[in-house]
Amino acid sequence: MYEGPVQNLIDELCKLPGIGPKGAQRIAFHLLNQETETIDRLSDAVAAIREGVTYCHICGNVSETDTCSICSDPKRDLDTVCVVEESKDVQAIERTREFYGRYHVLGGALDPLKGIGPDQLNIRNLLTRIAEPVEDANGDTTDTTIKEIILATNPNTVGEATASYLARVLKDFPKLTVSRLATGLSMGGDIEFADELTLGRALVGRRSIL
Amino acid sequence: MYEGPVQNLIDELCKLPGIGPKGAQRIAFHLLNQETETIDRLSDAVAAIREGVTYCHICGNVSETDTCSICSDPKRDLDTVCVVEESKDVQAIERTREFYGRYHVLGGALDPLKGIGPDQLNIRNLLTRIAEPVEDANGDTTDTTIKEIILATNPNTVGEATASYLARVLKDFPKLTVSRLATGLSMGGDIEFADELTLGRALVGRRSIL
Repeated sequence: MYEGPVQNLIDELCKLPGIGPKGAQRIAFHLLNQETETIDRLSDAVAAIREGVTYCHICGNVSETDTCSICSDPKRDLDTVCVVEESKDVQAIERTREFYGRYHVLGGALDPLKGIGPDQLNIRNLLTRIAEPVEDANGDTTDTTIKEIILATNPNTVGEATASYLARVLKDFPKLTVSRLATGLSMGGDIEFADELTLGRALVGRRSIL
Repeated sequence: MYEGPVQNLIDELCKLPGIGPKGAQRIAFHLLNQETETIDRLSDAVAAIREGVTYCHICGNVSETDTCSICSDPKRDLDTVCVVEESKDVQAIERTREFYGRYHVLGGALDPLKGIGPDQLNIRNLLTRIAEPVEDANGDTTDTTIKEIILATNPNTVGEATASYLARVLKDFPKLTVSRLATGLSMGGDIEFADELTLGRALVGRRSIL
């Protein structure tokens, strides 16, 4: 145990995900040796994390403004929506540079054991978005409606359950195309080291190339 | 890239040791979902890390007061001093409950490539401590002098170099016993997996048991 402020910071850091006692200690001593400016910058950044952070009224992504930078980008397709669990999934898909539509952030996955049902997720908004004409980048109503939904929840138990649930609900919109991200081998990976489930999915989902 | 405060916090967190972009993102989104109180507690703990933290005038350990809790503990031996690189090494040795003397924190190890010579470390104070009578737990001068110095710098290149340097300097005090922490096999470890250097040291330092 250290004295006063050092131990206090270590205790607070330990509560963060991915930081254990050793890491917390390392960070605390690192900060002790930093300029006051550096320390204040970090402290202010922590304090400000929630200030000015709101959620886009269209897609539910974290944003500084009422409409996030993606939903207010006139170059995005209005009729394709990629449904993801969290904001970080938006960033992951953006990094691929393969998707030009908009997003819909659910804020998690269905998980009855944790008490997360459809009402705890941003699902009702999704259904409204599909039922009503799309709002364009300037916030004006257009005559476009959403034509395709890509279910990009995680390929794990809760993500798959969420995708199944959404697929069932979305059957009520017969004109809508609903797709799911492909599962299969990782690029650059070895077949030898792929798990059975993934390799099985890769076989089932094989694509004709000739 | 996220917007505003979220990205700002991620950038600041990335500068900390042991936190990469993924970990920083995870922490930022974790904090976004926390109560304002929790966030403020962390922010304040960061801001306060240097407030009220000073260095013990005897041993150089981080402390809330001018004399740290170890140097002001009347039960510690006054004549034995364990020389360590950093405050965290003090904690590591305290956890063993095998040492009852006081410490001397150098504040690092000799590293000419990084411009750290003897003058950058808390070495002059160590020599003064050895040359002069010991101050007791109440801050009164006693007639005791330091009799033993344990060099507990790390068993790596810079730590060994620091220990060698100190051993050379401490030859000027003929009545002083100077020792070095034993190197050898880790407890609970396998000989099979020990590196050659450690196993070699364990052989050279073998102890008669019968």
